[in-house]
Amino acid sequence: MNRNALIQHMRTKKSALCVGLDPDLNKIPKHLLEEADAIFEFNKAIIDATAPYCVAFKPNTAFYEAYGITGMESLDNTMHYLHANYPDHFLIADAKRGDIGNTGEMYAQAFFNKWNAHAVTVSPYMGKDSVQPFLSHPNKWAVVLGLTSNAGAQDVQMLKTTNGPLYLEVMKAVASWGSTENLMFVTGATQLEQLKAIRKQFPHHFFLIPGIGAQGGSVKDLWTHVATSDIGILLNASRSILYASADTDFADAAAQEARKLQQSMSIYF
Amino acid sequence: MNRNALIQHMRTKKSALCVGLDPDLNKIPKHLLEEADAIFEFNKAIIDATAPYCVAFKPNTAFYEAYGITGMESLDNTMHYLHANYPDHFLIADAKRGDIGNTGEMYAQAFFNKWNAHAVTVSPYMGKDSVQPFLSHPNKWAVVLGLTSNAGAQDVQMLKTTNGPLYLEVMKAVASWGSTENLMFVTGATQLEQLKAIRKQFPHHFFLIPGIGAQGGSVKDLWTHVATSDIGILLNASRSILYASADTDFADAAAQEARKLQQSMSIYF
Repeated sequence: MNRNALIQHMRTKKSALCVGLDPDLNKIPKHLLEEADAIFEFNKAIIDATAPYCVAFKPNTAFYEAYGITGMESLDNTMHYLHANYPDHFLIADAKRGDIGNTGEMYAQAFFNKWNAHAVTVSPYMGKDSVQPFLSHPNKWAVVLGLTSNAGAQDVQMLKTTNGPLYLEVMKAVASWGSTENLMFVTGATQLEQLKAIRKQFPHHFFLIPGIGAQGGSVKDLWTHVATSDIGILLNASRSILYASADTDFADAAAQEARKLQQSMSIYF
Repeated sequence: MNRNALIQHMRTKKSALCVGLDPDLNKIPKHLLEEADAIFEFNKAIIDATAPYCVAFKPNTAFYEAYGITGMESLDNTMHYLHANYPDHFLIADAKRGDIGNTGEMYAQAFFNKWNAHAVTVSPYMGKDSVQPFLSHPNKWAVVLGLTSNAGAQDVQMLKTTNGPLYLEVMKAVASWGSTENLMFVTGATQLEQLKAIRKQFPHHFFLIPGIGAQGGSVKDLWTHVATSDIGILLNASRSILYASADTDFADAAAQEARKLQQSMSIYF
């Protein structure tokens, strides 16, 4: 999916919402556990319920790998379902991969070709040759970790380089490897001042911002200080939507939560 | 597997060799492509042929994910085969994972519980809470990226912090999160001077060193300057062993290559 198509879909929907698909068998409604593929049934219901309010879905690969082959089948079913039924939704494999060239190519093949994702989250620690394999596929995107919202962001990303904080140096390097047409950044929502500074440095890149919903983070602040004339932000919510209810009404509750978030954004369009 | 068991196995075998299992359907012998699970058949033959000369196996997850569900089944079969038949061999899932706490736990569950790996390679960019999930399982290991051997190591790992090169600062932080009993580092073999400096800083940690065989790198140099009285190094070779021959004699050729590497190490025991 190219940048214009993504932006167009966002304008039509008046939404920048990305729904994270992190299915946890300990948290999904008990009645689903009787299904042959409980994770897929859960995802399908969540997808159908929230698709009207969101523009992107983001399955987190860890939550599928944890269940071994059956989990990977659930991921496979989910990706195919999304690809077949919601071709306008931007599909991000949240995999945080990153490895040298020939290995990176294999990851790109997995996510772009096998699972039809439009984008993969990528860790930049191994440098240019670990990011480039994700930048050489037409209409596909690398969403590279910049500044994340977890406590551990202090440990590496915030280290002081001779030019400033590490994450900014990393993002400058990463930005030079691709364009605003194939490269986004993951930027954490808990630190507004830092987000504003990052936006100043990178005025045209899309930012994938986790942390609205369960992790806190204000839609208004983000829209006022981080959005651009091309929108420029994808706001992810996972747990607050997925687990809005643990009962048979979970899909309705998820839809309501997604709708609430979408409405909080719609006024800015 | 605990540190003593690993060292004991190394002394018995007079080997520090780790065989990387990076099966590429474009490179494996053509006659195997007729098998129902060609990758597993290839791996099984390589494992049986090289097990006498190595102490560890390291499947690279990208090479399985690239083939979708069937690839993951090949990985599953390979892990179970190793676990059942070679319980003394150290089993490293080369996955380069790294994500916040609850996601990290899911990855640890996948690799330690579902696939019985003893160790997972981990990217440190997201900090302590992304590494810790791999450090809290008894007799399991995190093998964290320190300095890698690819060209892209320049881009992030070699950035100058106010205290020195980034990779050293990262490794110091990482070392404080675990112990020499549950934490190793990936350190690239192409830069001997840097390896010597890293060893000075971290005299007791095991280093997983890729790059012998196909990528060059001298066993003698490593043994003279980087090994410790507890051995302290695992030397990985992948392509030079796996693709020593592309014909029906591939397993014999792999065994010969592994034996050659083991013999080059045995004189130091």
